[in-house]
Amino acid sequence: MQDKTFLMIPGPTPVPESVLLDMAKHPIGHRSSEFSKILEKVYSNLKLIFETKNDVFVYTSSGTGAMEAAISNLVNEGDKVLSLVIGNFGERWAKIAKAFGADVEKISVPYGQAINPEDLKKRLNEDVNKEIKFVTLTHNETSTGVTNDLKTLCEIIRNHGAISIVDGVTSVCAMPLKMDEWGIDVLVSGSQKGFMIPPGLAFLSANERAFEIHKNCKRSGFYFNWDAYKKSVNANSTPYTPAVNLFVALDTALNMILKEGLETIQNRHKKHSLALRAAIRAINLKLFVEDDSIASCAITSILPPEDISVPDIRSTLKNDFDIVVANGQNDLKDKIFRMGTLGFVCDRDILAAVSALEATLYKLGHKFEPGSGVKAAIEILTK
Amino acid sequence: MQDKTFLMIPGPTPVPESVLLDMAKHPIGHRSSEFSKILEKVYSNLKLIFETKNDVFVYTSSGTGAMEAAISNLVNEGDKVLSLVIGNFGERWAKIAKAFGADVEKISVPYGQAINPEDLKKRLNEDVNKEIKFVTLTHNETSTGVTNDLKTLCEIIRNHGAISIVDGVTSVCAMPLKMDEWGIDVLVSGSQKGFMIPPGLAFLSANERAFEIHKNCKRSGFYFNWDAYKKSVNANSTPYTPAVNLFVALDTALNMILKEGLETIQNRHKKHSLALRAAIRAINLKLFVEDDSIASCAITSILPPEDISVPDIRSTLKNDFDIVVANGQNDLKDKIFRMGTLGFVCDRDILAAVSALEATLYKLGHKFEPGSGVKAAIEILTK
Repeated sequence: MQDKTFLMIPGPTPVPESVLLDMAKHPIGHRSSEFSKILEKVYSNLKLIFETKNDVFVYTSSGTGAMEAAISNLVNEGDKVLSLVIGNFGERWAKIAKAFGADVEKISVPYGQAINPEDLKKRLNEDVNKEIKFVTLTHNETSTGVTNDLKTLCEIIRNHGAISIVDGVTSVCAMPLKMDEWGIDVLVSGSQKGFMIPPGLAFLSANERAFEIHKNCKRSGFYFNWDAYKKSVNANSTPYTPAVNLFVALDTALNMILKEGLETIQNRHKKHSLALRAAIRAINLKLFVEDDSIASCAITSILPPEDISVPDIRSTLKNDFDIVVANGQNDLKDKIFRMGTLGFVCDRDILAAVSALEATLYKLGHKFEPGSGVKAAIEILTK
Repeated sequence: MQDKTFLMIPGPTPVPESVLLDMAKHPIGHRSSEFSKILEKVYSNLKLIFETKNDVFVYTSSGTGAMEAAISNLVNEGDKVLSLVIGNFGERWAKIAKAFGADVEKISVPYGQAINPEDLKKRLNEDVNKEIKFVTLTHNETSTGVTNDLKTLCEIIRNHGAISIVDGVTSVCAMPLKMDEWGIDVLVSGSQKGFMIPPGLAFLSANERAFEIHKNCKRSGFYFNWDAYKKSVNANSTPYTPAVNLFVALDTALNMILKEGLETIQNRHKKHSLALRAAIRAINLKLFVEDDSIASCAITSILPPEDISVPDIRSTLKNDFDIVVANGQNDLKDKIFRMGTLGFVCDRDILAAVSALEATLYKLGHKFEPGSGVKAAIEILTK
């Protein structure tokens, strides 16, 4: 039905009506005092969300832009970068670092698994000459639905002395992530995920250690250069014309987020993923990530029944029930489908999704007890 | 009055209601067939606007991002770049080129003037060894309200053999700019100007000559790398998550632009600036750019009366009449104010602006015949 589509992909995620309407207001001048007041609130609220005392820069770009900003402001040609790869977005760090001339080494695991902290510890212990200057890693891997044990990994990196560069694109807001307490050096995120606004803004925060290294970076580019953003943040301004309407939307969304409370939001995400995972098991489907301790609470990857294809499931969900879920990426295409429960999602959405998935599978001939998934979800949601 | 502010700055510019409302729709998935269809239309319509057969890339970024994309995909460390500087945005090309290691030489003129084509011809004739590989230039300089004779300048550059890199941020749509016919090699623009949508998207088109040079560029970065965008344009896709809602807005705006017609729009801009300039003269104010042949038809820079300050004019216009005009930038701050007549502006807006400026000056004690500015504007608008 027209205008009825509900997105359950890992991003863009659903956007609250009040955010959409504030975004639709006529743009205001980006050098006006009104806009400066909005920036002051936004910059201050972002520190609360990132749980940091460092500045948080806002780039008008995709999340990938903030990833580039992390690398281009730190890495010199020939610098050794260790990339922890558990999926496509971990791979992206390695690609960006290579594009900037880094000497990239990877620790990779089969997709669907997390980095074993012992493997990282072993590799870093071997690096007695401290050649590894940077370690890139992904908190929540969108392509597989796996969450790394970020706290432990960053502690190991900190003990070695390298700079940790963390992709928090799909994790900030949705799951506990304490930048300062966990000793994260550089953290990036994107607007179209837990922040509940459309894509177009990306966030980056770097601590003093990272800024010290940045001073010796020979080519930090121009558009993403930290120095310009540092100066602007302190003046409640932006270096270049920002996506004004998205900032207005962000202001509204951040107020909503802080009103609901970070911990409440994170518990909601946890509960929703547990309910969804229980339902998936109840209706005789297999989870791509069986281990609850590493399963993402933002994206759940699901294997189709042997005799039903991912495209059939996705098109039936969309055409009959107006729910969009994501396919797998690259090698996982048509092998899994991914359901996002990220951002502006309520209990009703989970029930609607589970029952629509049941209806879809029933129509496509899957063998299970209709209603069993909803029952499993209800038990968790009403706890 | 709340919600009554009318922007007459050089950007963001006013946005049509239908564009704002389309932008406020729930975001759709950026890998969906619906979005791919929007991209197909957008990419095809942008070629008509740029008057080129080359692809036009759309970056989720400020216009400055597209400027960086032009430099970072072409210039190697040590390459000689000649920057033609007639204001702050011409200066920005030089800064970006330096940030990427170029050997930058400038031809500068006092602000308020245009580049004399003879000066460029002389310098390029001296370059017998063809050391100058790139020439950066600004079509319409937003900081001063001066328009360069782009066609002539690009012809001179083409005869020398260097690659021309043109900032069309405030000129595309608003004034004649024929990329292919004028032999422009690289052209960039931004969304919040003649395109009538909010800031957040930037455009870049490069011809085959530029792509040949790009092949030898050693470090083209990642986020702005032409190769990724080239591949995506041909697949009606984008390499990274784009600002989906701004693309939807762009689709609507491009349809409006092509329906009105580029030539009609350009004539409208010309008529509006002539009407405004006639009014300014009639009310005893001085134009910063006296010479009609180089005056911008998108931004008009005005000197305040000797005994009235720019801040007083700007605040009275804003507080009493809900019109926002821009101050001068850097050295020109408080020396001039700038009125944008760029994008979604009708004859009524010009009359409102002229009469509000009259009322402002009347209140602030300027000596002139009230109504004389409106009379001068009416004569031109009704021709």
